Amino acid sequence: MAKYSIDLDLAFAALADPTRRAIVSRLCEGPQTVSELSKPFELALPSLLKHVQVLEQSGLISSEKTGRIRTCKIEPDALHATEAWIHQHVTAWEQRLDRLEAHIARMKRKK
Amino acid sequence: MAKYSIDLDLAFAALADPTRRAIVSRLCEGPQTVSELSKPFELALPSLLKHVQVLEQSGLISSEKTGRIRTCKIEPDALHATEAWIHQHVTAWEQRLDRLEAHIARMKRKK
Repeated sequence: MAKYSIDLDLAFAALADPTRRAIVSRLCEGPQTVSELSKPFELALPSLLKHVQVLEQSGLISSEKTGRIRTCKIEPDALHATEAWIHQHVTAWEQRLDRLEAHIARMKRKK
Repeated sequence: MAKYSIDLDLAFAALADPTRRAIVSRLCEGPQTVSELSKPFELALPSLLKHVQVLEQSGLISSEKTGRIRTCKIEPDALHATEAWIHQHVTAWEQRLDRLEAHIARMKRKK
């Protein structure tokens, strides 16, 4: 689907993990350093950094290092692309239900 | 997140594959048999069935066998749950931007 320049495979795969979804949740409230991000998780820093790396590769977040501090922030385009894909399909499904409903109503009127 | 009874790990993981997304796309247009589903894919039937099985386990689709024919259909609750999760976070991110914008406007007025 050419309209999504975002790699949906990577974005959905990145969202398929509760720790990574929790990182996305927190970054939606504003940028955080890796050290701030690590606080609520009972995770060794290398494990957290692995999740951050998967999220960066998916395009859902980006990070920047200033001195020894790495700060992460949300990249909304990837989140919007996943939302658009799902919304498009939910809409297609609902439109099909509407068509079915209209068809049944027509059949009833013909009786 | 208790409000989602759907397993989001499995749902997002299931969507992280282009063949499985294509199956979801087609089922959003209406139920199809496994044989109908297999037609546009250059896949051996066992590979297609593996994808169908992953989608079933994720709750995104269900299937029913009548005689030798297995028919698949979309299960909208799982699609709605993934949409709700993403929408909630896109909204949180946008609200943060709005708050930032309002804060900057207030700072400007104070100058």
